[in-house]
Amino acid sequence: MLYAPGAELIPFPSITAVATAVAAGMADAGVVPIENSLEGSVNETLDMLIDETQVRISQELVLPIRQCLLVKPGTQADEVRVIYSHPQALAQCRNYLAYFFPNAQVAATASTAAAVEQMMKDDQPAAAIGPQRAAQLWGAQTLAQNIQGPRPNITRFVVLTLRDHPPTGDDKTSLCFSFAEDKPGLLYQVIGEFAQRRINLAKIESRPMKDSLGSYYFLIDCQGHRQDKVVAEALAAVKAHATRFKVFGSYPRYQEGS
Amino acid sequence: MLYAPGAELIPFPSITAVATAVAAGMADAGVVPIENSLEGSVNETLDMLIDETQVRISQELVLPIRQCLLVKPGTQADEVRVIYSHPQALAQCRNYLAYFFPNAQVAATASTAAAVEQMMKDDQPAAAIGPQRAAQLWGAQTLAQNIQGPRPNITRFVVLTLRDHPPTGDDKTSLCFSFAEDKPGLLYQVIGEFAQRRINLAKIESRPMKDSLGSYYFLIDCQGHRQDKVVAEALAAVKAHATRFKVFGSYPRYQEGS
Repeated sequence: MLYAPGAELIPFPSITAVATAVAAGMADAGVVPIENSLEGSVNETLDMLIDETQVRISQELVLPIRQCLLVKPGTQADEVRVIYSHPQALAQCRNYLAYFFPNAQVAATASTAAAVEQMMKDDQPAAAIGPQRAAQLWGAQTLAQNIQGPRPNITRFVVLTLRDHPPTGDDKTSLCFSFAEDKPGLLYQVIGEFAQRRINLAKIESRPMKDSLGSYYFLIDCQGHRQDKVVAEALAAVKAHATRFKVFGSYPRYQEGS
Repeated sequence: MLYAPGAELIPFPSITAVATAVAAGMADAGVVPIENSLEGSVNETLDMLIDETQVRISQELVLPIRQCLLVKPGTQADEVRVIYSHPQALAQCRNYLAYFFPNAQVAATASTAAAVEQMMKDDQPAAAIGPQRAAQLWGAQTLAQNIQGPRPNITRFVVLTLRDHPPTGDDKTSLCFSFAEDKPGLLYQVIGEFAQRRINLAKIESRPMKDSLGSYYFLIDCQGHRQDKVVAEALAAVKAHATRFKVFGSYPRYQEGS
């Protein structure tokens, strides 16, 4: 399951920082969340993939999320006045927080790592929501575990490197594209380039182009590797329709226990 | 531009609260943000539209966002230790905050209205990011205006009521659907039901179904009213493909100055 069991693990305070560290050669690989089963796409990751020119997706990981409530050793639950975490983790734990900390102030941070760091140096009694591993890294104490609610909470992560992965025979390819004009049939034609070649689409998503309201990048995950013949043909056809076109990478499809 | 100039305006602390107020008859109409030109879809609104059974979209409004930094009268900028706002507003103003308040703590609230309310009753020197109108409502002082950065910052709002809007001849329809199985061609077929009838799609979006990773609701905005003959045909065809199918409403397409 782990990408590189012997690797040195370096925490960075945000998704963009992880990508920049890989692009700058400060890290060989970066792991960032891209999608959660409850909260949906992680927009910062999608926008980074659209904008960043050097990093590629070379692997995906699918991991269950088990959020913990972490405090400085000795802090009691009834003392906690502020709770730090990433907005996505705060959203996952909103029921727990509403029941047990209705009066605590909730503070958004750029990552769960940053949340734990900020909690540890806060003067007032604070807590952070993050994974158990963060408690070990920062010497925090775990007040509660599995506070993310009863529904399946699974996050897909992608591994960023400077090159994507060679074909394995069971791969996925992630890409984005945009159109210059808002012609009715263009998206249909593009999806047709995949459907007519029997290439399954695992996901379709849109993100704002940020120049006006109503103009979007479309992001697609399709089955197969960009070097597979039919996928290569489909991608060339999509590129011909698109104004902007970018392949984020091809990588092995995640399999349970892999 | 205003929906009902003589109406009494009641602030609610969250998007879900606005929808619930309309469903419960506490308000005749509710206005909630659905999409921003920089940050993309407002997930809480999309999930509420999927889950909520009583409210419909009866109108859309497209408004420029001008965020202000608000404080209690007399508070100086260099005293501010915590800054409250909705995560979307905080994201829009992240450059301003990084330049002028690099050391302030940033705290997420359920809405900009809740941010201003919380700021006004905070004991420590605080600020809130919100619209100018919020300053008037809560008696706050405006320290800075237009802090949302240089890119076009426009938000589309929808008006929620118990019934959608009668046809006007220039309408939009918003809907969602899902499939039981992950068949390659299904989304293509559904988009084809619109494309073959020359019905333009203004937007396509996906949201997690929250039962497992990789299962999605698709959300579409199409041109035309659900009572228009071709749109009604397309919707019936989509419904035949779908496991879950819901029309959020048909409403007049927003026009500048309307």
